[in-house]
Amino acid sequence: MNDPIRVGLAGLGTVGGGVAKVLHDQARALSWRAGRDIRITAVSARDARKDRVVDLAHVPFEADALALAERDDVDVVVELVGGEEGIARALVERALRGRKHVVTANKALLARHGGALAALAERHGVGLKFEAAICGGIPIVKALREGLISYDLSAVRGILNGTCNFILTQMEATRQPFAEVLAEAQRLGYAEADPTLDIGGGDTAHKLTLLTSLAFGTAPDLDGVRLTGIDRIAPADIAFAGEFGYRIKLLGVARRTPNGIEQLVNPAMVPASTPLADVESSFNAVAADAGEAGPFFFQGRGAGRGPTASAVVADLVDVARGALGPAFGRPAAELSTPRRESAEARMSAYYLRFQVLDVPGVMAEISRHLANELVSIESMIQRGRAPGEPVAIVMITHEAQHVAVLRALQAIGASGRVVEQPCMIPMEAA
Amino acid sequence: MNDPIRVGLAGLGTVGGGVAKVLHDQARALSWRAGRDIRITAVSARDARKDRVVDLAHVPFEADALALAERDDVDVVVELVGGEEGIARALVERALRGRKHVVTANKALLARHGGALAALAERHGVGLKFEAAICGGIPIVKALREGLISYDLSAVRGILNGTCNFILTQMEATRQPFAEVLAEAQRLGYAEADPTLDIGGGDTAHKLTLLTSLAFGTAPDLDGVRLTGIDRIAPADIAFAGEFGYRIKLLGVARRTPNGIEQLVNPAMVPASTPLADVESSFNAVAADAGEAGPFFFQGRGAGRGPTASAVVADLVDVARGALGPAFGRPAAELSTPRRESAEARMSAYYLRFQVLDVPGVMAEISRHLANELVSIESMIQRGRAPGEPVAIVMITHEAQHVAVLRALQAIGASGRVVEQPCMIPMEAA
Repeated sequence: MNDPIRVGLAGLGTVGGGVAKVLHDQARALSWRAGRDIRITAVSARDARKDRVVDLAHVPFEADALALAERDDVDVVVELVGGEEGIARALVERALRGRKHVVTANKALLARHGGALAALAERHGVGLKFEAAICGGIPIVKALREGLISYDLSAVRGILNGTCNFILTQMEATRQPFAEVLAEAQRLGYAEADPTLDIGGGDTAHKLTLLTSLAFGTAPDLDGVRLTGIDRIAPADIAFAGEFGYRIKLLGVARRTPNGIEQLVNPAMVPASTPLADVESSFNAVAADAGEAGPFFFQGRGAGRGPTASAVVADLVDVARGALGPAFGRPAAELSTPRRESAEARMSAYYLRFQVLDVPGVMAEISRHLANELVSIESMIQRGRAPGEPVAIVMITHEAQHVAVLRALQAIGASGRVVEQPCMIPMEAA
Repeated sequence: MNDPIRVGLAGLGTVGGGVAKVLHDQARALSWRAGRDIRITAVSARDARKDRVVDLAHVPFEADALALAERDDVDVVVELVGGEEGIARALVERALRGRKHVVTANKALLARHGGALAALAERHGVGLKFEAAICGGIPIVKALREGLISYDLSAVRGILNGTCNFILTQMEATRQPFAEVLAEAQRLGYAEADPTLDIGGGDTAHKLTLLTSLAFGTAPDLDGVRLTGIDRIAPADIAFAGEFGYRIKLLGVARRTPNGIEQLVNPAMVPASTPLADVESSFNAVAADAGEAGPFFFQGRGAGRGPTASAVVADLVDVARGALGPAFGRPAAELSTPRRESAEARMSAYYLRFQVLDVPGVMAEISRHLANELVSIESMIQRGRAPGEPVAIVMITHEAQHVAVLRALQAIGASGRVVEQPCMIPMEAA
């Protein structure tokens, strides 16, 4: 058997502890797969003395994570520090420059600097692996980089944030408003104290950016993602979605269009008959069309100790057995800069909800503004008759230009009879 | 860049032609992934002169596929001949002995001889890859061998045969009997002229055998699979399943039990709320519980040119970049011989349908035989009142010993008032 591969582990929190535990518990089976032992030879963490799930007392401890990149007894650095700049970025760069492989769960870092880091890894002949950055319990990075590589993909769609999917599922089950469900999720530990990155769609955008690169061979382009969060979804929207045969999911969608690559993160109306609609609670899922290899759909756990540690360990085994290959499936120099699909060209059908005063002529006014922008209505529901009080008018449009719908909504919003900002949710194709 | 890897392609039918086309169309992108070109240097097929999707006129042709294993200009043999013995087996054995890697789509061969072939590959230091043998459009071999490797799996379930799933889906949609739907599927080319291997469950058993080995580290044990086909499913069963909140699917199930490994292929009642129940038409799917990494569910195309060619090419790229590793994820000598779960120990709830003469006392008689064997009834439906004519009595039992239910059914079947052999379908847990 070959020499052991030596791991420097930066971050001993939930995930880092999980990684150490798996490497300990499964040592024999993992060395069979890797052709060599995988040994932790140095660690770094914020608190040296904290109790760990695995006893690492015999392993050299570095107070400064960056020191892991300098140690002669480290072949691969596992970066579990997090954040798109700061220590995480410095550690990864320094490790790659020092000809050490890097395994990371850091989606923010790679979404922002993935192209440059892939080039750095290549220049120094080492691997850069990030299965844990996207849906740890689904080996989707491996599937896109090594599995479904024979035909061009046309689109990738994902439910990539468990917190948002949990909140939307709970809103549907309890009919409670967003803020209450979020507060409950925070109380239960399903949502962070500062939930901005989840509910605003930023976390989904990080993951989508990486999926886009893997699927289309483009450099990660985080700024090319158009982003809408879930905080404006009302229980009424979820109920109306059900009436129309849809469910609302926060989707990350990357698509090839005639004009370039479109990357969207937004709540979307997903047809109830499609697998994505059935993804419950905190599960993640990715669906794509792999050309002649057919459409596929993968569902699993996205985050947390087990799924993330599992993905980190899989990457470590790949590195240990020398299965490196380019980070995004092609040489960094061949990663094209994606041409961004323009917002103007974008076409979609939309769900629209207006809260209006129930007075004569309001429907005619809304219809007129939509018609002015060539937005035609496919179906409509008007509920509750309360003369003089706000009621909901809900409609689904035919396919229309995104900007045209926005212009119509602006005109409609200016009406004194429309009492709150209209809600607009794109319809996903079946 | 390294030297090209040289491929000897045995079989130029639908799949072989698809492989040649992908290697041609995607040559550049594949060489990026592989770190070298992948070149077809010799081919073999039954008919040398047939028109191909790719022009292979310049490639040396061997009338005898076995000759591919002897050629000095072949590094890897792609075996698309098929069959568990004969030329396919001889070719694979000879190639491995000649230190050539093997990529195969041959599930029958591996289900029967996989342990010995893995040992042979290992002894000669070459790779044996078979992604295309199980659900080509889902990289499930890679996922189990390289991805979800950190925690012990408890069970794997799959819809592994597109023909059977197509027939069951059609029976549900059209309410037609099995024989008619099968005939229609044959007419449309969705079922073979001799459909025995599909509808009898044999094809599912081949694939399940390989999944079991990948999931549990055991040598393939085809004879350990207990097999029931779909030919006895009646439209009435599909309708009753719906009433109870289930759908009938042909499942392959491998489970760890306290007594060993259980491998079953049979029509099963799948709860309508689970992803497996929603797998439509000719799609395949695999669901498993990867311990702390969570449950996962993958759906995609199983067979046909695109999915199978895609899987073969992915394996070729792995071989080309030197990502070999043991065929079943551990050294052949470490593949344990699975202890087979005994039929006696097996526990399950069951759906039972009896066609009985509608005369007084028949229900009492059935109940008594079940009670004698300690099989208790959870719910029951009796439909259609036609005194003296056959009617259906349908029930779902609580969990009971498999052999006890069989004994009860034998006793009930002996009654003059039961007019055909009872139908018995196990219930899958949610």
